[in-house]
Parts: sequence; C-alpha cells; structure tokens
Amino acid sequence: MIEVQKLPRNETGIEAALGVLKQRFGEKFQTGETVREQHGHTTTWIQNQPPDGVVWPQNTAEVSDIVKICADHRVPVIGYGTGTSLEGHLNAPAGGVCVDFTDMNQILAVHTEDLDVVVQPGVTREQLNTHLRDQGLFFPIDPGANASLGGMASTRASGTNAVRYGTMKDNVLSLEAVLPSGEIIRTARRAKKSSAGYDLTRLMIGAEGTLGLITELTIKLFGIPEAMSSARCSFPSIDAASQAVMATIQYGVPMARIELLDAMAVQAVNAYSKLDLPETPLLLLEFHGSAASVAEQAEMFGSIAEEFEGTGFEWTAKAEDRTRLWKARHDLYWSVLALRPGAQTVATDVCVPISRLAECTSASVAKAEELGLMAPLVGHVGDGNFHVSPLIDMSDPREVAASKEYVSWLAELAISMDGTCTGEHGIGQGKKPYLEMELGAGTVDVMRAIKTAIDPQGIMNPGKIF
Amino acid sequence: MIEVQKLPRNETGIEAALGVLKQRFGEKFQTGETVREQHGHTTTWIQNQPPDGVVWPQNTAEVSDIVKICADHRVPVIGYGTGTSLEGHLNAPAGGVCVDFTDMNQILAVHTEDLDVVVQPGVTREQLNTHLRDQGLFFPIDPGANASLGGMASTRASGTNAVRYGTMKDNVLSLEAVLPSGEIIRTARRAKKSSAGYDLTRLMIGAEGTLGLITELTIKLFGIPEAMSSARCSFPSIDAASQAVMATIQYGVPMARIELLDAMAVQAVNAYSKLDLPETPLLLLEFHGSAASVAEQAEMFGSIAEEFEGTGFEWTAKAEDRTRLWKARHDLYWSVLALRPGAQTVATDVCVPISRLAECTSASVAKAEELGLMAPLVGHVGDGNFHVSPLIDMSDPREVAASKEYVSWLAELAISMDGTCTGEHGIGQGKKPYLEMELGAGTVDVMRAIKTAIDPQGIMNPGKIF
Repeated sequence: MIEVQKLPRNETGIEAALGVLKQRFGEKFQTGETVREQHGHTTTWIQNQPPDGVVWPQNTAEVSDIVKICADHRVPVIGYGTGTSLEGHLNAPAGGVCVDFTDMNQILAVHTEDLDVVVQPGVTREQLNTHLRDQGLFFPIDPGANASLGGMASTRASGTNAVRYGTMKDNVLSLEAVLPSGEIIRTARRAKKSSAGYDLTRLMIGAEGTLGLITELTIKLFGIPEAMSSARCSFPSIDAASQAVMATIQYGVPMARIELLDAMAVQAVNAYSKLDLPETPLLLLEFHGSAASVAEQAEMFGSIAEEFEGTGFEWTAKAEDRTRLWKARHDLYWSVLALRPGAQTVATDVCVPISRLAECTSASVAKAEELGLMAPLVGHVGDGNFHVSPLIDMSDPREVAASKEYVSWLAELAISMDGTCTGEHGIGQGKKPYLEMELGAGTVDVMRAIKTAIDPQGIMNPGKIF
Repeated sequence: MIEVQKLPRNETGIEAALGVLKQRFGEKFQTGETVREQHGHTTTWIQNQPPDGVVWPQNTAEVSDIVKICADHRVPVIGYGTGTSLEGHLNAPAGGVCVDFTDMNQILAVHTEDLDVVVQPGVTREQLNTHLRDQGLFFPIDPGANASLGGMASTRASGTNAVRYGTMKDNVLSLEAVLPSGEIIRTARRAKKSSAGYDLTRLMIGAEGTLGLITELTIKLFGIPEAMSSARCSFPSIDAASQAVMATIQYGVPMARIELLDAMAVQAVNAYSKLDLPETPLLLLEFHGSAASVAEQAEMFGSIAEEFEGTGFEWTAKAEDRTRLWKARHDLYWSVLALRPGAQTVATDVCVPISRLAECTSASVAKAEELGLMAPLVGHVGDGNFHVSPLIDMSDPREVAASKEYVSWLAELAISMDGTCTGEHGIGQGKKPYLEMELGAGTVDVMRAIKTAIDPQGIMNPGKIF
C-alpha cells in the first residue's frame, strides 16, 4: 500500500464523541475493527486509514445530531455511500466518525410530470433505475460501479453516458445538506433553472464531503429513449480509434456512449466475460433516439469509422446483445484485476480537450510500455476522459516506483494539454499533489478560504482535496 | 422610480481612488455626470444610483490594477457589460468605480475541433455568433438583449434556447477572474469535465460581480443544426397553451425554443412589428436537428397542440420566415413599452416546475386583472420560466402600489409552488426581499460566509444579492 499523510488526532474529543454516539445510536453505532477497516476501505493502492466508529443514521435529523456531536468535540466526520471511490476519499487520516448512508435509501418522490425525483443519499443508481423502469424514465449517469447518488454527487461523478447526458453537476436540481455546524440547508428549489444567489448546489457537488453531508438530492430524469442500439468497432491502433472518436464528436453525432478499450483491456474482457472480440483497440458505442435517428447515427458513425480503418462495425438494437456488451464493459474493473491475480491497480483519470485525445492516449500507452508496466487503457473518450490502470505487484519496489512515476507523468501530461488530472474520480488523497499544478495557487487559496468559512473547525473529511 | 437602499459612502477613499485612476487611465477614466448616470442605468423602475467614475480597461492586467487601487482605498467596484440587466445590478448604492468592459471585446481563440471558444467579457452574443457563422458553429444562449458574455455569466442568464441548450451555468468551461484583492485566477482548464476541487466556475456564474470580475470566458459551442424550423400556434386560453407546453416537455420532444405570449403580448407584437397574428395566447416554437428529425418534432408538437385546441399551427424551414418571427419576439420588450407610451415596465421572472406552469400562468394573468394592471405575459415556458411586465404610470401612486403588491405576490406564488423568484435575471437589488424566503436563512448565511471569505472588505458590487 502507498502510505498517505497521517493528521494529528484529537484523542480526548474522539473518545468523548464515541461515548455520546454509542449512547445515542446503540446498535446503529459500531467500533469493531473489521467494520472500521471496511469503511476506510479504498479500491486503490492507498493504505487503509480506518475511522474510529461507524454510525448508520435513519434520517436527516439524525445526521444533524451526529454532526453536532462531532462538532462539539471537534471530531472528523466522513460520509460513506457504497465505498467505491478511488482516491482515498473514505480514509480517516485524523480518525473520526464515518457516517454510513446505507439505511437512508428511500426514493422519496418521483415527479413524472417534471422529470425529476427526490432521493435519499444512500439510494444507488441501479436501485433508482429499477424503481423507475415501469414509468418509462431513467437516470443516465453511470460511473460503472453501483454507486450511491450521494457519493456520486460528492465526487462529481460521470461515466459512460456523460458524453450525451452530462455529469452529476448537470443533473442535480437541488440538495439538502447538513452543514459542519449541524444546521440543515436546502440549496435550491425544484425549478429547472434559477438565478437566485450563489450556486451552492454546484459547490456541494464535487466537494467530497468537505463542506457538509448531502442528505437529500433532487435529480433530473429522462424518458427512456424510444430506440437504443449498441455497436462495436475494432481499430488497428489506439491512435486510429482515438481519431475516429474525435471526428465523431466534432461531426456532432449525439452519441450516448463511446468507450475505448485498448488491446490489453480487450484481452481482459475476453478472458473474464468469455467473449471473442478481436484483440485490438475497440470502441463500444450506444445510440439513443427515435428508431430513425438511431439508424442515422449508427450509419454516420460507420462511415467515420471506415475513414480510420475501423473494422467489424456491427450494431444491434436487440436488448440482450446490448446487455451482454455493456455488462462486459461494467465488469472491466474485475476483468483487469483478473489479468494479473494478486496485483493491485492504480487509478488514473485524466481528461483532455478532445483535440488532444489521440496524442494523449498514444503517449500514455507508449509511456507505460517504456516503464515496463502492464497497464490497460479504458475510457469515456467522447469527453476526452480515460483511465490507464497499471497492475502492480506491491512487493516489487521497482514496479511501485515505476507506477508512481507513471501516475505523475500522466497527470502532468494531461495538465500540459489544458486538461485535468481528474475527469470524474475527484482529488481525495491520491491526486492532491496535482491540484495546484492544474489550477494555480491562487485558485486553490480561494477553495481553502471557502472551506475555512464553511467549516472553520475543519471537521468535514479532513485531509482530502487540500 | 422605486427608491432602493443607499449604503454609507467612504468619501475619503473614493476621492483618493478617483485621483489615482485619473492619473493611471487618463481619457479611459471618466467622471462626467451623463456617463456616470448611463452606467448606473437600469432598464427597470429602480432608481439610478450612479458610480463616481467609469473606467475602460484594455486587458486583464489593467482590471487587476483597477481592483487593487479600489481595494487599497476600500472603494466599491462594479462590473459593466452592456447595461441590460434588470434588477439594479449596475447601481452604486455606496458609490465607487464602474469597470466598463466594452474595450475588452476580443475573441481570443476558436477551437473548432473542441467546440469551444475563448473570449473577453465584453464580447456580445451577436458579435460572437457573427464571428462563428462561417465555421458552422454557434453559441446558443440567447437572453433577448445583445448582452455581453461576461454579464450573461454574472447573472446566470439563459433565455429562449435554454430548454434545449441549458443556461450559462451549463455552457461555460472555465473562467479567468480578478479577485477582490486584484489577484488573477483561472477556475478550470479546458477539458469538458473535471472533478478537481470546488466548482469555482459555477460559483462565479450568477455571483453578479460580488466575488470578483470575470476577465475571460471559455465557453461551449455547438454545430449549427443541419435543419431548423420555426412554428407558431394559437390557443383559446393561457391555460390551454400552458397545458400544451407541459405535454410537449413531458413527451420529451427536444424543443429548441418554446415561447409563450399572452393575448396582450401578441397585440403588442402585432402593433410594433406589423404582423397580423391572431390576438389570443400564442406559442412560438423552434426545432433543431436533421431534416427528418425536425419534421418529426414538428409533427409531434402539432398533434399535441391539437389535443389542447391549438389552431393555426404552421411550421416553416424558410430562413426569412424564421427570422421575421424571432425578430418580433426579440423586439418584444420594445413592443410592450410601445403599448403604453411613457409607462415604465416592472421586471418579474418567476420559474416553476413544469407541472405547475398552467396553474401559475393562469393565476398570474388573473391577479394582474384583479389589480387593474396592464401586464403582458411572455415566457421561456419550456423551462417553466415566464415574465409578467406591468406597464405603469409612475406618477400614479395607486398603480405603483398595485405593481409592488403584484411583484411580491408573484414571487411568493412561485416560491409556494417550489419555484424561484428569478429564473434568469438574478437578485440584484430588486429581488433581495425574496432570497431568504426562497432558500431559507441558513442557505443565505452560507452565501454570506463565502462572500465575506472572498471579499472581506465588501468592495465587489455592494448592496446586491444580500
């Protein structure tokens, strides 16, 4: 594991707060080692820094009580959804209390006429879509993992559908949040747009729980498209595939999904999901619209792909074929891990302007080879966002060093191309070294000033972002 | 004119700052009464509170210098684009210096491959679209007035195209801004999405110049649609027209524009733009897409309109017919003023969830009648946003009192329907009484804490929002 900074612990405060919480929440408060370690768990190579206790609130009033107790004793508070974040967001470098939203998983109101829904933060995206299916509606944001909506908002998540439907920042109308003082606020009303004061909705989205805890979300829904079709197309090189993506976006084809897998990622998928895709760079695509429009889009993409030596272009509107293809894409994380049993993956998450995509993906693959890393590449390339995931043997210091070098090199490359070190995962602990490089010291100082103004005691998810 | 609060003036500081600015900026700094009054000018019934001087910076470094000079002397700084805001945003209730961005009107870089453009804040939307036309691209946000992009960002503007393309918050990738200290920051890089820290881009958008001055914007562009068609359709009542809008949005027809005019607004348009539209509630529509999709959309709307007794539904893809119709819509502000020469208009700007649209529009028209107000209604109703504009004789205390009552009543009605008192104009001075009612004291306190953290001296556009 990669060690991260430990912060000073307020031992007296923590002890006192644990006592009060135990009394107040009984069985809904736990301090067992296994439970604590699970809640500091992170799906990356960052070391586990467990909280001192985990509490399961049942409603917003209880969340407010928990935060007040922690504020009274100056004890850190860390929100927890499903534990699928990738940059050490859930770690407790100064100890403290983890607030697990699993029990706050009610879908409170579906407004079909307004195309929105009010949910508690523990609702997962799959749970929501299952609930909505009968009503002909869906929520499009899909980060791969079956994440909670509170967590997705907190990391400004996006994923495969973002090229068409935007990210969490584009799909939340309003939030209820508990501030570091325990006070409960609502950031906006349910109107589709508003110019009433500062955009606190967008400020809370992506704040990684450092400004408060999200306790309710009002999010936009979409009608399930009349027609959906999926397609795949293989390319001779990562450059050719990326060039095809660039042309598709520039031509304005309204892609719902356009995912790139390099040859190594295709190998992983074939092995894990028992498919026989050609083991060269691959694009997986999805088109949404009317039957006529979907056919038109597929045709447009087909002729673009041909220009870039795409082969094996096939599209299907059959639900079972679509499901099989996208199930394989969703299982990619596990497929990649299975490529090298016992290895640890390292998360990278760069995003560049689309004009730089081919250059950035090609350089990324070449650099991994140069460093001798086994590092499959997958990406939501319609947005210029991709992940290269070195698979490393943590007991081999050479591999660990090479991976560290790679992560830094890639973040710096993306930033040099006017891109970002994180398109959708967030800063957490892992990407802290690059925030100032990306945005400048003055910009980060403004963020810090906001943090201090809203959370003067610094109790909300300390050690993250800054 | 309606009087608004005056704030204490820092006379010594203002005098000193004016002296320094005169020396530093020569002819590009003016203190003549006419110029000052023009810059406090507001297109509403709010009284004019002119600044003490107006300065025309040529670049970001000069903006930074101006703000530093003002900060050194604790003097208010008010940004100015084209002067088309509607809620007293440009007034100087504590005096101070107006920064007019007219000379900062360069289009710095068009990235056709990335579908974005970098502009200075004084660039107007018409200037930008004229520049882009040859490249097959356009910027869709259209608030009616030929506003500056800096001003549009600062008020979180939207307008007729927002139902399809979103508001300013959805179409800005990155901002350069001068902070109240004079420091220059950049809020993001040019990638389409990012999870790197707090969303300062969205925080500056809609901040009405109270947190800093926007000195550069990177904004999204769109390909000019292959086909565009316009349509109009008349309805027997405001309720029927609103019901048709609700059904159209709920069916998911991807409208580019859907504008409602009540009978009085149609009369105004007929008289001013020499048209002969039936003088009953009217919807003006625009469809964007491929030729096939545009025809499909128009057909779908046509059959929905029929259900709600729509008549005279006509659509046209002819550019000259489209232009004539939308020119009339854009001239509506002047048409309405011409209905009652010498009268003053009062701005209202409510926005409600679409399910409440028919109820809200019908009640709004009925209430204006009850109060004896001549008050045409127009709206970007696809978003649930509309404006009722009482035309009042300011010398008649009864009319002034009735209008004040109406403005309050309408804001409260929208808020009671889970809507907002301002969909796109901003709070400024005029809507300050409703901000806390809409969002709660705790939420406004968070905004104030952010304001104080970023602008501890309170020099940026004082007396607005809060």
